[in-house]
Amino acid sequence: MLAKIYVTPKRGVLDPQGKAVAQALHALGFAEVGDVRIGKYIEVRLEGAAGEEAAGRVREMCEKLLANQVIEDFRFETVDDGGKRS
Amino acid sequence: MLAKIYVTPKRGVLDPQGKAVAQALHALGFAEVGDVRIGKYIEVRLEGAAGEEAAGRVREMCEKLLANQVIEDFRFETVDDGGKRS
Repeated sequence: MLAKIYVTPKRGVLDPQGKAVAQALHALGFAEVGDVRIGKYIEVRLEGAAGEEAAGRVREMCEKLLANQVIEDFRFETVDDGGKRS
Repeated sequence: MLAKIYVTPKRGVLDPQGKAVAQALHALGFAEVGDVRIGKYIEVRLEGAAGEEAAGRVREMCEKLLANQVIEDFRFETVDDGGKRS
C-alpha cells in the first residue's frame, strides 16, 4: 500500500521559498503568476498494512514527524497498488 | 486558476531525505514503513489564465525552473477555483 502525503504551509504563514519562486517566475517572463506556495509531497510505502488501520498509522506519522502542525497542514490518501515499487 | 504541481525524484535516483525519514519513522516504531520518497508540492496561482494555454505555460514553468529534469519528474493539474485565495 502506498500513502501519498501532502504537507502545505498553513494559510497566513509566511512562505519565503514560495515568494522566491514567484519572483523567479516573474523574472523569466511569467507575468501571470500570482501567489506561489511550496509544500512537500511524500510517498510512504507500507508493507502489509491496509484499510482504516493503515490510514490511522499514516495520520500518526504525519502528526509525530512529517508535518509541523504549528505552521503546516497535511492531507493524505492511501492507494492499494498491489505492492509494486514506485 | 490554480496549478497544483508535483515534483518527485526520478525512479532510481537516490533520495537521501527519504531514507532519513524512513529511518526516523522506524525509530518511532512504524515498522511497516518501507521505501519513502520525498518530492515537492507547489501551488501556483495564475491570474487571468485558463484552459490549454495556461496548461502549456505551467509545463514551461516546470521545465524552466520548478523541476530539474535530470533527476526529477513532474506532473501537474490545473483547477479553476474562481480566483479565490488559497
